[in-house]
Amino acid sequence: MEKAYFHGNNKTDADIAYAMDVGVGYFVCDNEEELLAIEREAEKRGKTQKILIRLTPGIDPHTHKAISTGSVDSKFGVAIETGQAMAFVRTVLAQKHIDLFGFHCHIGSQIFETEPFTDAAAIMLRFIADARDTLGYIAKELNLGGGMGVRYLESHPAIDYAENIAKIAAKMKELCATLSLDMPAIRMEPGRSIVADAGLTLYTVGTLKTIPGFRNYVSIDGGMPDNPRYALYQSPYSILLANRMHDAKDTVCTVAGRCCESGDLIQEGVPLPKPARNDTLAVLTTGAYNYAMASNYNRLPRPAMLMLRDGQAKQILRRESFEDLLRNEL
Amino acid sequence: MEKAYFHGNNKTDADIAYAMDVGVGYFVCDNEEELLAIEREAEKRGKTQKILIRLTPGIDPHTHKAISTGSVDSKFGVAIETGQAMAFVRTVLAQKHIDLFGFHCHIGSQIFETEPFTDAAAIMLRFIADARDTLGYIAKELNLGGGMGVRYLESHPAIDYAENIAKIAAKMKELCATLSLDMPAIRMEPGRSIVADAGLTLYTVGTLKTIPGFRNYVSIDGGMPDNPRYALYQSPYSILLANRMHDAKDTVCTVAGRCCESGDLIQEGVPLPKPARNDTLAVLTTGAYNYAMASNYNRLPRPAMLMLRDGQAKQILRRESFEDLLRNEL
Repeated sequence: MEKAYFHGNNKTDADIAYAMDVGVGYFVCDNEEELLAIEREAEKRGKTQKILIRLTPGIDPHTHKAISTGSVDSKFGVAIETGQAMAFVRTVLAQKHIDLFGFHCHIGSQIFETEPFTDAAAIMLRFIADARDTLGYIAKELNLGGGMGVRYLESHPAIDYAENIAKIAAKMKELCATLSLDMPAIRMEPGRSIVADAGLTLYTVGTLKTIPGFRNYVSIDGGMPDNPRYALYQSPYSILLANRMHDAKDTVCTVAGRCCESGDLIQEGVPLPKPARNDTLAVLTTGAYNYAMASNYNRLPRPAMLMLRDGQAKQILRRESFEDLLRNEL
Repeated sequence: MEKAYFHGNNKTDADIAYAMDVGVGYFVCDNEEELLAIEREAEKRGKTQKILIRLTPGIDPHTHKAISTGSVDSKFGVAIETGQAMAFVRTVLAQKHIDLFGFHCHIGSQIFETEPFTDAAAIMLRFIADARDTLGYIAKELNLGGGMGVRYLESHPAIDYAENIAKIAAKMKELCATLSLDMPAIRMEPGRSIVADAGLTLYTVGTLKTIPGFRNYVSIDGGMPDNPRYALYQSPYSILLANRMHDAKDTVCTVAGRCCESGDLIQEGVPLPKPARNDTLAVLTTGAYNYAMASNYNRLPRPAMLMLRDGQAKQILRRESFEDLLRNEL
């Protein structure tokens, strides 16, 4: 737990106490009220809590609005541009039970280029140099957050992570030299880019509904309860008919879930072999933000999960039962 | 159960068997493959299953795209306009274990006028008359589905349901007379309009974040996991500071949830008394599509629910525990 970072734009007093109970190493402190709540809890325990400050560098990484989080107008963090960030550092340094370890930013998701990261790094390093010059504070760590892109479609670029990280590091060394700054420890949070590609979702096909002059709907035994990402962000996915991989893709389909709304779609414009009842449809790259976002909308139990390795399957999550859905009802 | 209607655009073979096990009265049959699956299961059991056919009358009820379901281009039902509906009736009537009871449509949600319903009724009744004239089939029931609007904002019209239903009924009598049709039994499904207003969600305020030149974010201890409707459809809500109802509303706020994305908002442009940590924020009219759509995104346990009556509170749903979240993991 001493390696864990506790994120979020709204940590309740109960969250803060719980995180200290279990010994979370770093709080990524979002704002002043949270800072004061951490200080109060740390004082009560007679301990010092390490924190990073979450800053918004004002970068637009050119991704979907809902998952772009680094701009000044954000619920996350404190803005550098408005002068609020430096004032906040001053407040943090005045606390008795807080050890300011460094700074954190997160500019968004699905970023395929290195420039948004090096642009953010340039702003963050300049801020670190300013904090040194203004307040005599030396940051030990700069955390550039997550956001490395995942290849949902063949048309998405294949990222060479090692090469990208080398590029970002080289640029940061250069920036530090320019600012006469000892390079802080650099961290990045590659979450989704590690796990997304490790997952896929299998559905059973129900109906192929052809509406002349409009389109073909293929319905599946799942949908927005297990994957709300198309409904929320029109997220792209690669989709295959798993039991007929080599048949000609002669039918352009809209893949529709089974919930009670028209927006319950998984994808539109998908070329497939003409699907039939009980075919198996595979949606690729669902290892991130699927089980994590799953609901029981329309009282649908969440599906089981299997881990596959070396030709062996191991169940890691039981299928929810109707009893599970009612367990907490009184 | 003999009064229950089983809806959905994709009923699996297992669903169909389960519904017959428990004796569901009516299947609202969506499409031909489903029809054949119902026929197979009914034949196996030596029983006759009552069904309605779900039709799309081609009506646009002027609501949000995701919750408009009556147009020809829909994952739901069979289109009248394309001629597919009448061909489907013929197929249904040829089945040996199916009792076609009538027809169903559902044109969308949040409909405040009566015209979309009477427009749909006109199309459906004409179809019923056509089925009589072409196939000699007499429908016993016409189900116009749901969609009656709910007053989320003061600016929404207050619906007089009794008056609206009387208007719709009068128009339908007139239409039946014109078509020389005995009036079928008419059903409507007012679901949301019954329960939405019976619920409200209480949150505890975390932080008020003021970004000069941009806006004020007030963060709460919930968000898209308990209410994804703003993230999905930009749904409007009336919001109050419950513990300071009579203070002047001097601060225009964006109400932000606590999840790891910028799209996790409950509402924008909300006038409130300047909120402070631990204030109680009330989001009104959350009795429908909130608990039903709730997820555990960011591993947040779902909140408890209380039923209030005559000044008494009774808990009807336990707050989820961390143990609940891990129960099915192996």
